Amino acid sequence: MEKIGVAVLGATGSVGQRFVQLLAEHPWFELRVLTGSERRVGREYGETCRWILSEPMPEAARKIRVVPTEPGSVDASLVFSALPSDVARVKEPLFASAGMGVCTNAGAFRREVDVPILLPEVNADHIELVGRQRAARGWKGFIVTNPNCTSTGMTIALKALQDAFGLDTIFAVSMQAVSGAGYPGVPSMDILDNVIPFISNEEEKVEWEPRKMLGRLGAEGVEPADFRISVQTNRVAVSDGHLVCLAVKFRNRVSPEDAIAALSAYELPAPCVDLPSRPQPVVRVRTESDRPQPRLDRMSGAGMTTVVGRVRRDPVLDLRMVVLSHNTIRGAAGGSIFNAELLFRAGLLPEPS
Amino acid sequence: MEKIGVAVLGATGSVGQRFVQLLAEHPWFELRVLTGSERRVGREYGETCRWILSEPMPEAARKIRVVPTEPGSVDASLVFSALPSDVARVKEPLFASAGMGVCTNAGAFRREVDVPILLPEVNADHIELVGRQRAARGWKGFIVTNPNCTSTGMTIALKALQDAFGLDTIFAVSMQAVSGAGYPGVPSMDILDNVIPFISNEEEKVEWEPRKMLGRLGAEGVEPADFRISVQTNRVAVSDGHLVCLAVKFRNRVSPEDAIAALSAYELPAPCVDLPSRPQPVVRVRTESDRPQPRLDRMSGAGMTTVVGRVRRDPVLDLRMVVLSHNTIRGAAGGSIFNAELLFRAGLLPEPS
Amino acid sequence: MEKIGVAVLGATGSVGQRFVQLLAEHPWFELRVLTGSERRVGREYGETCRWILSEPMPEAARKIRVVPTEPGSVDASLVFSALPSDVARVKEPLFASAGMGVCTNAGAFRREVDVPILLPEVNADHIELVGRQRAARGWKGFIVTNPNCTSTGMTIALKALQDAFGLDTIFAVSMQAVSGAGYPGVPSMDILDNVIPFISNEEEKVEWEPRKMLGRLGAEGVEPADFRISVQTNRVAVSDGHLVCLAVKFRNRVSPEDAIAALSAYELPAPCVDLPSRPQPVVRVRTESDRPQPRLDRMSGAGMTTVVGRVRRDPVLDLRMVVLSHNTIRGAAGGSIFNAELLFRAGLLPEPS
Amino acid sequence: MEKIGVAVLGATGSVGQRFVQLLAEHPWFELRVLTGSERRVGREYGETCRWILSEPMPEAARKIRVVPTEPGSVDASLVFSALPSDVARVKEPLFASAGMGVCTNAGAFRREVDVPILLPEVNADHIELVGRQRAARGWKGFIVTNPNCTSTGMTIALKALQDAFGLDTIFAVSMQAVSGAGYPGVPSMDILDNVIPFISNEEEKVEWEPRKMLGRLGAEGVEPADFRISVQTNRVAVSDGHLVCLAVKFRNRVSPEDAIAALSAYELPAPCVDLPSRPQPVVRVRTESDRPQPRLDRMSGAGMTTVVGRVRRDPVLDLRMVVLSHNTIRGAAGGSIFNAELLFRAGLLPEPS
Repeated sequence: MEKIGVAVLGATGSVGQRFVQLLAEHPWFELRVLTGSERRVGREYGETCRWILSEPMPEAARKIRVVPTEPGSVDASLVFSALPSDVARVKEPLFASAGMGVCTNAGAFRREVDVPILLPEVNADHIELVGRQRAARGWKGFIVTNPNCTSTGMTIALKALQDAFGLDTIFAVSMQAVSGAGYPGVPSMDILDNVIPFISNEEEKVEWEPRKMLGRLGAEGVEPADFRISVQTNRVAVSDGHLVCLAVKFRNRVSPEDAIAALSAYELPAPCVDLPSRPQPVVRVRTESDRPQPRLDRMSGAGMTTVVGRVRRDPVLDLRMVVLSHNTIRGAAGGSIFNAELLFRAGLLPEPS
Repeated sequence: MEKIGVAVLGATGSVGQRFVQLLAEHPWFELRVLTGSERRVGREYGETCRWILSEPMPEAARKIRVVPTEPGSVDASLVFSALPSDVARVKEPLFASAGMGVCTNAGAFRREVDVPILLPEVNADHIELVGRQRAARGWKGFIVTNPNCTSTGMTIALKALQDAFGLDTIFAVSMQAVSGAGYPGVPSMDILDNVIPFISNEEEKVEWEPRKMLGRLGAEGVEPADFRISVQTNRVAVSDGHLVCLAVKFRNRVSPEDAIAALSAYELPAPCVDLPSRPQPVVRVRTESDRPQPRLDRMSGAGMTTVVGRVRRDPVLDLRMVVLSHNTIRGAAGGSIFNAELLFRAGLLPEPS
Repeated sequence: MEKIGVAVLGATGSVGQRFVQLLAEHPWFELRVLTGSERRVGREYGETCRWILSEPMPEAARKIRVVPTEPGSVDASLVFSALPSDVARVKEPLFASAGMGVCTNAGAFRREVDVPILLPEVNADHIELVGRQRAARGWKGFIVTNPNCTSTGMTIALKALQDAFGLDTIFAVSMQAVSGAGYPGVPSMDILDNVIPFISNEEEKVEWEPRKMLGRLGAEGVEPADFRISVQTNRVAVSDGHLVCLAVKFRNRVSPEDAIAALSAYELPAPCVDLPSRPQPVVRVRTESDRPQPRLDRMSGAGMTTVVGRVRRDPVLDLRMVVLSHNTIRGAAGGSIFNAELLFRAGLLPEPS
Repeated sequence: MEKIGVAVLGATGSVGQRFVQLLAEHPWFELRVLTGSERRVGREYGETCRWILSEPMPEAARKIRVVPTEPGSVDASLVFSALPSDVARVKEPLFASAGMGVCTNAGAFRREVDVPILLPEVNADHIELVGRQRAARGWKGFIVTNPNCTSTGMTIALKALQDAFGLDTIFAVSMQAVSGAGYPGVPSMDILDNVIPFISNEEEKVEWEPRKMLGRLGAEGVEPADFRISVQTNRVAVSDGHLVCLAVKFRNRVSPEDAIAALSAYELPAPCVDLPSRPQPVVRVRTESDRPQPRLDRMSGAGMTTVVGRVRRDPVLDLRMVVLSHNTIRGAAGGSIFNAELLFRAGLLPEPS
């Protein structure tokens, strides 16, 4: 199979770097184009990019010359966007309009009725919105988003539980890694020996996105799921891996054992089972008293698996549990790539130009 | 006024050290006796104690020779106990029985019906239990406990809210400092770049203690307050200062502004207003979007003030907020000393022998 | 005594904040003017400044309105400069020229022959350069610098040893706190679970400044001391407090005991003994095997004392030892204030305008 | 090829876990036996071992039942020892005497004249001591040690430089990861927001071991290399990866470019070039201004490569540079396994019993 040429928009930031790292050995996609800000254009990626991942920069990327974030400069049928949200809002439609498929980590279009927030484990059927989006906007390409990094793991765990028991009420409190804020992101003086109990606009996103993803696709777009949800978000001194403490009330009675069984048994929907980036398993339930922990569990399933632990009775609602997800792999670049694989398998990727 | 001679039991551990540091300049109490484990007995405190506080070891303590944790070795009418809970269970009654007042940070007796868990800001009236305790047990001395370090700040904030609006349901998730685990406590490999979503027996304590402290003193002891409460506890890479995210439902309607007003206006009960260790103010409400933070706010009111921030509407219950308390000062040694001041003022301290 | 009105230039950065905090209760100086960048001008300090110190913002500063960093906006005879070096190079001469005394933490003028790098403990006599500076430049005011934060503690310890034994060769390796890089400074992703073995231009400064400060004042300016010195600098995950490992060869034979005696006995020169910010003691020698440590020792002498430990034989040179100094107090704002006190005592402060 | 059955002595500690993890997929060795302390004997490894590595516990190890650390309980011809030094001193000779090859990370026998401290990159020829050891002690097995984790990377870099330019004088200051202290090891209260400028007995080891390894094998054992060396060691808040700042004087003139060329060109001695655990490359020289860094570079060459950076002139000696080595892989378990591979290739492993 000839590989599909892909581009990364905003390739020198922290999520951009993760895209570059994960795409290096991809069996279907080949990294051909990297875009960056004006001052980097024309320079080799290996020179202009201050690489901050512990995995080394892929050799193939090192010599690629950075081009402007403009459709005319990008020869690819699929682009991954690591642009900041305000830039994404302006630029991504230009690429979609020019016939390219845009799989984006930016939040700019998540609330549009014809744009899916996609987690293949959860709502693979929402890719139907791509067709509506094309019809409504006259695009040959498309925009498909992945959720906020904190919404991601939580929603995957909740999906397994929703299917089995129905969701009624959710309280969530997150402890989020600094890599979620990008680079340079959180100043070290703010986080050493400290917790910051606030992340701008985060609680609003994480209270809304899971309801859209767990909602039903209707004629008018997605009808949000109707559970109640309260989310508080915190930044902690962790490099990678977002941890969420959940307390949940279900529609039906459920024991911790039932929930563990449902989480462990949760399987990928049929179209996803052999996608290269699929999590294996989708959810890993740990039964030790003190897991999951970011340092020990974030790389489960190559960083794509959602790890759940401490499933136990809650004295007010039904159950409580702890969910961990790798925020820059499953919750960002890895998630976008997984989305692109699903869209490719579904025949929705534009023909190479 | 002649100062009252006091002892610290278990003086070389981390809470013991905090007692020693806080008592150094106390206007009423004079540190005279320090007890420690067998291998330290007979040695000077300054030699045998591996001091781990950033405040220097008080000079007066340096030359005190460590004695065994036995009433016969301790010439004091008031003892502060920093013993581990299992040792406390055996030793503290011996001191109370020998006529000494025991103000303890250990949890061993918190669940006894005739032993108060005391926060002067909250339940100063519960010192009435001291009389019952003496009658029931034939002690001239007594045991008075302070709550678990995580219960402390939360309960103080909740008291102000309970008085004003009535409490119905509480969800709490904590992010706790490593000093709460004592010394050596948490291994550094467990907490660097990590969060541990589990602290042994902690959730049970923090779900129970606030209900006792906020309960009403009846003929049979304290009748626990009847709100519902769910607590999840986590350990984070912070040296001092426990942070708690709260979501609360009240019996009466309440706006964030009402809650802020009630918290800010909360005053010490009359018998406490001039005690040396009183927090000033009892509760400090911060209105910045990202406070309280452990590193910046833990020393508010010399570490005795409870700091509350991010008071805002909760989409499921009524309000949510963040509470910070210094776990080894207000939540441990400082709390015990404050308790002793109240007991002294109330005439409950035994006569010097 | 009427207090002298002072200004802080660049008052909202991390060193600027430290100036504001330390000047709040100063017995001689009264904080009257705060300058800041254009977007802050006209706003109250308490509103526009994102305060990052754990000590609270002084109430008196909160209501001061920020003015531009221009002599015409600053009504003070003494200004403390926390400006970035490139801005300092342009602005500080304007203030000196306008008749104000400038005590600066910026490095812009440290290499000028008529500008002292001043540590009162070390080279109080170098203030003679102020007269030459005025003569040469036609200023009524002056510029006096304090050294780089890493040079500071090292030079104080070396001065005591130089006086006693003569210095021949020095190897120094630093482990520096993140606060030394200002705010936002070091990104948290760069320092969590990491060390950065590089600080831009730092090694050059710390190899040069001690030689100027320990040099002799001659007709042509300061003749640098002629010891040889090699410095390597590293950034570590510490909030405050720079640690330096030294290996030293002396001109005369010296035992660890001799060195400890010389360090402990080192006294302030006569003009400094009653200055308000003087370190007490100048050098504290710790004899435990594992001290000094930043968290435990940085606040020695209110952050003004240089702490030395692990004084022992070196297998190649004569001795080695570890030096700790609080980088934003003794090594920055506190040092500048101490300098101003010496200059005031020497009658070198301009008359209030 | 049938795999050689191997045992890990002291398999539940942090180095023991690293042995288990690295041996899981070894092409020549098969993990068959795990020993542990009395209270663990008879239990399954997966149950009794509190796993602290971020890589998951190998499935094959999970079901192995822990046996006592006694030759009679261990059916293997090769044992890897992660025993504490005092236990190693007693136990390891029993295994060697019983005919097993002992590749040990413990320091107990490093100073014996007939025991090599082995780094295949450096002194593969020192395995000749095995024969002398067998002759002298009447063992069919042997004891071969790997160096202290801080000596390791430094000695590999120094070997390349010694061969090319001759070593005269070395100043080294280390910043060491907490995993070097084992588990539980360093208490978190000692290292959060802190540096500890002391590691017990470490400086003595790191000043001696490189001289033995870089020495010449003579009739009387190894004649230590005769350069002068001063080492200061520090503990920092890093999980894995020891960093060392070096200043070096050579016997011959050398420029930074020469040194970089010599380091980059350094090759494994012939018997090591196809060993499974060989570092690829032996030394990686980084030319960025701020590398190596523990978080970014410790996994170079699967954690077996020594990374050198900041090679530059020293103002007192000739050159200075920074060396990084993964302390639990290259500097401990990975090093022992690499040693065993060399010994196997040399035909020195005992016949399977």
